[in-house]
Amino acid sequence: MMTTEEILEQVKAGALGIDEAAGMLKQQPFEDLGFAKPDYQRSLRTGFPEVVYCEGKEDAFLTAIVQKLYEKNGRVLGTRCSAHQADLVKAAFPETDYDPVSRTLILGTAPEATGNVAICCAGTADLYCAEEAARTAAFLGAKVTRVYDVGVAGLHRLLSRMEEITSANCVVAVAGMEGALASVVAGLVENPVIAVPTHVGYGASFHGLSALLTMINSCANGISVVNIDNGFGAGYLAAQINRLAVRGSSKST
Amino acid sequence: MMTTEEILEQVKAGALGIDEAAGMLKQQPFEDLGFAKPDYQRSLRTGFPEVVYCEGKEDAFLTAIVQKLYEKNGRVLGTRCSAHQADLVKAAFPETDYDPVSRTLILGTAPEATGNVAICCAGTADLYCAEEAARTAAFLGAKVTRVYDVGVAGLHRLLSRMEEITSANCVVAVAGMEGALASVVAGLVENPVIAVPTHVGYGASFHGLSALLTMINSCANGISVVNIDNGFGAGYLAAQINRLAVRGSSKST
Amino acid sequence: MMTTEEILEQVKAGALGIDEAAGMLKQQPFEDLGFAKPDYQRSLRTGFPEVVYCEGKEDAFLTAIVQKLYEKNGRVLGTRCSAHQADLVKAAFPETDYDPVSRTLILGTAPEATGNVAICCAGTADLYCAEEAARTAAFLGAKVTRVYDVGVAGLHRLLSRMEEITSANCVVAVAGMEGALASVVAGLVENPVIAVPTHVGYGASFHGLSALLTMINSCANGISVVNIDNGFGAGYLAAQINRLAVRGSSKST
Amino acid sequence: MMTTEEILEQVKAGALGIDEAAGMLKQQPFEDLGFAKPDYQRSLRTGFPEVVYCEGKEDAFLTAIVQKLYEKNGRVLGTRCSAHQADLVKAAFPETDYDPVSRTLILGTAPEATGNVAICCAGTADLYCAEEAARTAAFLGAKVTRVYDVGVAGLHRLLSRMEEITSANCVVAVAGMEGALASVVAGLVENPVIAVPTHVGYGASFHGLSALLTMINSCANGISVVNIDNGFGAGYLAAQINRLAVRGSSKST
Amino acid sequence: MMTTEEILEQVKAGALGIDEAAGMLKQQPFEDLGFAKPDYQRSLRTGFPEVVYCEGKEDAFLTAIVQKLYEKNGRVLGTRCSAHQADLVKAAFPETDYDPVSRTLILGTAPEATGNVAICCAGTADLYCAEEAARTAAFLGAKVTRVYDVGVAGLHRLLSRMEEITSANCVVAVAGMEGALASVVAGLVENPVIAVPTHVGYGASFHGLSALLTMINSCANGISVVNIDNGFGAGYLAAQINRLAVRGSSKST
Amino acid sequence: MMTTEEILEQVKAGALGIDEAAGMLKQQPFEDLGFAKPDYQRSLRTGFPEVVYCEGKEDAFLTAIVQKLYEKNGRVLGTRCSAHQADLVKAAFPETDYDPVSRTLILGTAPEATGNVAICCAGTADLYCAEEAARTAAFLGAKVTRVYDVGVAGLHRLLSRMEEITSANCVVAVAGMEGALASVVAGLVENPVIAVPTHVGYGASFHGLSALLTMINSCANGISVVNIDNGFGAGYLAAQINRLAVRGSSKST
Amino acid sequence: MMTTEEILEQVKAGALGIDEAAGMLKQQPFEDLGFAKPDYQRSLRTGFPEVVYCEGKEDAFLTAIVQKLYEKNGRVLGTRCSAHQADLVKAAFPETDYDPVSRTLILGTAPEATGNVAICCAGTADLYCAEEAARTAAFLGAKVTRVYDVGVAGLHRLLSRMEEITSANCVVAVAGMEGALASVVAGLVENPVIAVPTHVGYGASFHGLSALLTMINSCANGISVVNIDNGFGAGYLAAQINRLAVRGSSKST
Amino acid sequence: MMTTEEILEQVKAGALGIDEAAGMLKQQPFEDLGFAKPDYQRSLRTGFPEVVYCEGKEDAFLTAIVQKLYEKNGRVLGTRCSAHQADLVKAAFPETDYDPVSRTLILGTAPEATGNVAICCAGTADLYCAEEAARTAAFLGAKVTRVYDVGVAGLHRLLSRMEEITSANCVVAVAGMEGALASVVAGLVENPVIAVPTHVGYGASFHGLSALLTMINSCANGISVVNIDNGFGAGYLAAQINRLAVRGSSKST
Repeated sequence: MMTTEEILEQVKAGALGIDEAAGMLKQQPFEDLGFAKPDYQRSLRTGFPEVVYCEGKEDAFLTAIVQKLYEKNGRVLGTRCSAHQADLVKAAFPETDYDPVSRTLILGTAPEATGNVAICCAGTADLYCAEEAARTAAFLGAKVTRVYDVGVAGLHRLLSRMEEITSANCVVAVAGMEGALASVVAGLVENPVIAVPTHVGYGASFHGLSALLTMINSCANGISVVNIDNGFGAGYLAAQINRLAVRGSSKST
Repeated sequence: MMTTEEILEQVKAGALGIDEAAGMLKQQPFEDLGFAKPDYQRSLRTGFPEVVYCEGKEDAFLTAIVQKLYEKNGRVLGTRCSAHQADLVKAAFPETDYDPVSRTLILGTAPEATGNVAICCAGTADLYCAEEAARTAAFLGAKVTRVYDVGVAGLHRLLSRMEEITSANCVVAVAGMEGALASVVAGLVENPVIAVPTHVGYGASFHGLSALLTMINSCANGISVVNIDNGFGAGYLAAQINRLAVRGSSKST
Repeated sequence: MMTTEEILEQVKAGALGIDEAAGMLKQQPFEDLGFAKPDYQRSLRTGFPEVVYCEGKEDAFLTAIVQKLYEKNGRVLGTRCSAHQADLVKAAFPETDYDPVSRTLILGTAPEATGNVAICCAGTADLYCAEEAARTAAFLGAKVTRVYDVGVAGLHRLLSRMEEITSANCVVAVAGMEGALASVVAGLVENPVIAVPTHVGYGASFHGLSALLTMINSCANGISVVNIDNGFGAGYLAAQINRLAVRGSSKST
Repeated sequence: MMTTEEILEQVKAGALGIDEAAGMLKQQPFEDLGFAKPDYQRSLRTGFPEVVYCEGKEDAFLTAIVQKLYEKNGRVLGTRCSAHQADLVKAAFPETDYDPVSRTLILGTAPEATGNVAICCAGTADLYCAEEAARTAAFLGAKVTRVYDVGVAGLHRLLSRMEEITSANCVVAVAGMEGALASVVAGLVENPVIAVPTHVGYGASFHGLSALLTMINSCANGISVVNIDNGFGAGYLAAQINRLAVRGSSKST
Repeated sequence: MMTTEEILEQVKAGALGIDEAAGMLKQQPFEDLGFAKPDYQRSLRTGFPEVVYCEGKEDAFLTAIVQKLYEKNGRVLGTRCSAHQADLVKAAFPETDYDPVSRTLILGTAPEATGNVAICCAGTADLYCAEEAARTAAFLGAKVTRVYDVGVAGLHRLLSRMEEITSANCVVAVAGMEGALASVVAGLVENPVIAVPTHVGYGASFHGLSALLTMINSCANGISVVNIDNGFGAGYLAAQINRLAVRGSSKST
Repeated sequence: MMTTEEILEQVKAGALGIDEAAGMLKQQPFEDLGFAKPDYQRSLRTGFPEVVYCEGKEDAFLTAIVQKLYEKNGRVLGTRCSAHQADLVKAAFPETDYDPVSRTLILGTAPEATGNVAICCAGTADLYCAEEAARTAAFLGAKVTRVYDVGVAGLHRLLSRMEEITSANCVVAVAGMEGALASVVAGLVENPVIAVPTHVGYGASFHGLSALLTMINSCANGISVVNIDNGFGAGYLAAQINRLAVRGSSKST
Repeated sequence: MMTTEEILEQVKAGALGIDEAAGMLKQQPFEDLGFAKPDYQRSLRTGFPEVVYCEGKEDAFLTAIVQKLYEKNGRVLGTRCSAHQADLVKAAFPETDYDPVSRTLILGTAPEATGNVAICCAGTADLYCAEEAARTAAFLGAKVTRVYDVGVAGLHRLLSRMEEITSANCVVAVAGMEGALASVVAGLVENPVIAVPTHVGYGASFHGLSALLTMINSCANGISVVNIDNGFGAGYLAAQINRLAVRGSSKST
Repeated sequence: MMTTEEILEQVKAGALGIDEAAGMLKQQPFEDLGFAKPDYQRSLRTGFPEVVYCEGKEDAFLTAIVQKLYEKNGRVLGTRCSAHQADLVKAAFPETDYDPVSRTLILGTAPEATGNVAICCAGTADLYCAEEAARTAAFLGAKVTRVYDVGVAGLHRLLSRMEEITSANCVVAVAGMEGALASVVAGLVENPVIAVPTHVGYGASFHGLSALLTMINSCANGISVVNIDNGFGAGYLAAQINRLAVRGSSKST
């Protein structure tokens, strides 16, 4: 695609008619602005390939989109992918790596793992969400350290693994029920903590609302929160932060 | 007051008319039932003297009720007592001990402190509530250990005082914001933990709702919760549990 | 495991190298602190054996953990255990005692029942939760008195059983719908009341929220609340309080 | 005003033009329907005089409307009336009866008190609302029995006054905090109970929401609920029910 | 059972020993108090026979309790009764009248219908709840007028039936979604209106919460509210009010 | 400002350098897109002049912005304007028209009133909001018909004014408390109804939440809702709809 | 049916008796009022034929009502229609047009499409709701422009289609999750925007509550909101506004 | 302080007694663990000096703590600082830089600004919060780019400044009302976005809850949320992320 300057040059040179040039400028306004690109260029813009949210996608549509992205990007991550959907993709691509716990599907070779992201979770019941975060971060190029089953009701389990946690560029803390893990972790590390509330719990946990409120009210510094069960979002964000740490500011001079 | 048996004896003996006896039985039904007593006997029933909730009480009424209870019980605890109300009582009883932080007022000599109740709070902003619990428990006979400013965002502060906490018969954990202190404490002790959410915080703390939900969803064992800012309730309950530990089962044979 | 002092003695005596000693101290930091122990020693720390929360555990994992705890502790309590899970355990241990109402599973001989815990519930619909509390407390060594179907809409049912209730070291009050039972009971006894809201109800009961709010706002003294449907939590706490009453303060001199 | 039939008669007789008659019928459609009347006839329609909700009304408007209603109906009830507003009315009508607790203002002689309405409240803090109900019911012709300070945390206080309560045609139960009074009362009487939650409480009482939920979820029969602090609404409804009991069905043959 | 006076007479006469008399008085305390009776006498106390809430009751228990009440009272009302449960009862009592819409089951001959209760509902989707109210009120002796499908979005439907509504002693207004029916009706009648929110709706109706709030905030006089979907409660209350209108004050002199 | 085509023409003609042209295109990207304009052209884009939300604006800033808009557009509407702020503006422009009820301030001559917008409100307490809507719609060119104090609890008041309401192009229905007015109106008219909940009420009105839910759940067709107390938003939207009715589709051929 | 005037004429002429005339006037009160008509005339009153909400309607009733409306109006729209229900209708009318995505069923020939309504939706998951709006608006006579999958997270998708959106008389913006689409659209167009929150999302979307709140709080002008998932309501309202734009004010002189 | 190894060496050498060594190890357990340090070393651990939350701190305490930190760290940041508190500090340190908008107080020379953090806010009303974030990030060493008043209702304002935004290592997006800014920004940048809801708004904004829900449900990637009005938290987190970008992974090899 031509830049604004190139179009203008061609207009000046008479190689491009006024109407044609105006049409190009109006059809692709964001090329002019220099920050937005068509979706098939998302990988260029964000540095990360597009991810497929499988839930609710019809069979034919899902396999088509997976195939298309696989061809273009050489690898694909699918989240919230059911066993049935995984089978569909496997039929087409036997090399598919499907994890039923996190319900994530990965095609293609992982990039080299760099930096370090620690994924902590409070209990084994939160594993589905922690693994979604872990596999997402790994797919996006981060080296991942898993620190599972370290809920605050048995504090020594967490403390005995602090060295692994403090050495990460970014920590993801996954917890349901009262969600206290994130505050405790954030009080012990110097890098950002991304808190993920899960729906794990019952009664007044209100399907994750309690954990969400706990985390959003944390008195610790350096903590922020994503949606309930949004392991993907946390993994994505962790990979962004980790990338900054690894390669430094992308646009600084 | 006569027991049912005594009334019946007197009826049988002709010393009491049928109507008179029936009236007595009906006027005092709960003496018959053996478990409820008029309020001036509450101290006998619960073993604790009545406490005055000062908020909203008019001046004349407040001083009257304080005076009456002081005369009968020899000591009085007033909670949610304003500085103005404290001045009123002090005018009548210069020996009044008023604490503006917890807004509690105490008259009379404390009973001998027995057992051990630990009162923990997360931050200095929660002190008003922790002190209400502490002074209530002390008023009701418990030896109190204060462990303040031990919020989980600086975990070592809490851990360095665990010996004091684990040796208590009962622990009160006071916290606002995300309220994670209670879970962490309950995971480290063997005796009951009473969690008190405070209204301390802002934004999505919703005036203590966040801390309340955190505590009620705790994944630790041996923890229960009282109302937001209810330091009095926690102190009362702690004193009950401490009393059981000190004197043993009151009614077991 | 050696204590800190023992390690130091051996270092002094040259029986242990510096590095080896430092490693031991760092690997087992909580032994040093004197309050936290590895999980397999939880029974030593809290005096109560670990309990298995069965819900969501996979078949193989569940049977493995039950077997392991059974071997170590000689007895096991499983909560939120489905009929299918119970069948699995029974296949391995025919002596399994499974109660489908409370969905609790017990293996091994109960300890001698001591003290007295009263479990009250408002209606027959709350029985599942009351029984979870009752069987938990019994498993942890408490003598349990069941006082069921004593909701406040038929007050005489409750009043006629007050003698049993008032003689307990601790009362658990289980109720759904408007949850008023806890307040009424707490107004009549001298020992602690643990209130358990249940999800029983419909419409504006909001799956137990109404009962939870009722209980947390109780105007009676000596009452605290656990999560909706958390019969286990109430039973555990009641057993803790009962134990204090029976054996006295564990750490007082 | 003419009835439909009278208008038709006059049309037939030529005494009324078609257009004029059509206009009258259209301007007063509800006279035709026989159930709705202009507001100054509300007293005829409902049998109760209109009541003035004073809050937010400007001084001049308030005195004007009070004067107008006083002239027409011979008596006036004003609710949520501030001391300042009461002074304004008193300046014009020295015979004004203003009660600062319930913030109600009454002008004119009360009708003969008939039947019996019992107004119960849980604590002295709920008095403002109970008195609003009591004075409203009395203004509307009901004999009122006040049964105050009978909260369920001291059950004997309530039970000792049941005879007064059970003999009423309708019971109003006013309570804040956990609001359990209504359920207990409804379980003991045979006539309707109107429950009024108050905003009294703190923390998780959420300004009366807790008491409202308690009451709306009551497991007792014969209970219904009005808005938080709506003593007027409860008194009005109680007077309606009491009137039905006193005079019988107004429209049955 | 003897009254207190009769027992005392016998004691005086020597026909009853002191211990025996005391035992009788203590075993039956509520006979003494004159307001509470054992459950099998509920019909005497409230004037209405006990009703069976079928939901969740086990088969054997349900048929047993229905049979027992049928024998004693000659008639039975069961609410929230499933088709399966109805079949069970029909097998034992072929004369069972089961209505699948309201899920109510009735055994025995209805009492003579007296007075007049109007049951209004907004849409056909609310019928299940309106019929529960209607059949309950009829079972308890009220003549019932059904005014269905009169939602406020088509106001003329309601207005064309006002004569039936205004002639009732009590009106039940059943509505889901925005629940505006109750306010409109209460503005047009002189007798009490009982509002029943239903769970009918979607989205922000929040399963009936919206209708509940609408009704509880009604600006009309003479309106009160029961729980979401509580047609039984409304029918019961309507029958109480209707009975007062028919027979007058039960206890007035 | 030049259009894209004009810029290209000048580039082609050599009248504009490439860099200069590219800069113009990039600085004003939305001129290219043909739908967005700089703010000072908002009046051109939307056909309505910009409105000043006064609340929270500092004195100097407020007077400056009012003056600037007055000069450019010849007229100004200020909303949520305090008396103090109005005085400031009046000092500069004595011709200011300030209405303390709606807290709106208007400068300049109104445009010719066209079409017809009906503004209804339920009670006099809602007037502040209804007037904000009315004055906004009038400022934006709509003829406004005020139909006030027509709450559904006195239905005849509303019905007697239906002719005025049905003849409007758009109806704004303003109500607090239970907010039923909107549904009733929408059931009677053929044109759109904009519902505005107000914060008027107490207790469970939750500052307008109840009315908002009522309106959003309306079972009537042709109704939509704006924020609580957002009279401005409703007036703006009504003026948009009215304008469409008056001038027809702006862009149809 | 005769008008009021015709009835009066006949009364005057002696052709109609007084009683008969009065009966007619009372039976049809709303003919007199000139704004309300029996339901089978709804099409005349609102200009739109009645629509069938299929959900929950029983088979026989549904087919009967569809047939009846088809015969009278020549066309029928059914919403929330299940596949099973669609099959029933197809069996009777093979020409039935059923769309399983929007769950709408249409019988009869569409009216000529006039004006222009743009339906935007944020993601493909919101399609069910957008299509319900689109098909409803089309059924009611509006020309519909679909602008799908233009969520704000990929802003260029929306901006590239602004020309289609800005040329519409009314825009429907459908979005779940955070629902930001409506604000962005409303900031770019001059005509009304109707926002429809969907239940699409998870966790703290609370089944559409989040999107509803986003939309109701929009800082853009000219936006109003319907219930969660209420595509029908939005389509209906859009058709009303579009009709006003096409035909101008229906009642202006 | 000695390390574990040094202590052991001294024990071995006999320079330290066993008891003394054990005491040291137990008093300083976290030195052993290698990750937690006393608070006065927080600056060392997190790389950022401690910050003073001024709200609620008493005058004497505030000035003391500011002085102490100033002496130790050479600079101090105080947040939520009232004008009165600022005056107190200024009296002691005239060089105090106090900003009344953000209510932040800064003492000491800022570190060299590195990297780039962009702070966006939707409206001028959100400035207080954006400035708190900006001044916090700057205090902690980040170069800050302010992009204010770029709410989505006037999209071109945001788009015209995208170049500044996309070049930042981290973007903070501050918005009240519907809070849509964060989603739009996150869809346009490649680095992390920290969303800060503010309490700005009215009605159904529920003091920031609406904006919080919008942000937590964002469909854009790379976004996380802090508490309502928590500008400090966002600034802190942004500085952490920016530091990682500037200096790279702190602990990678």
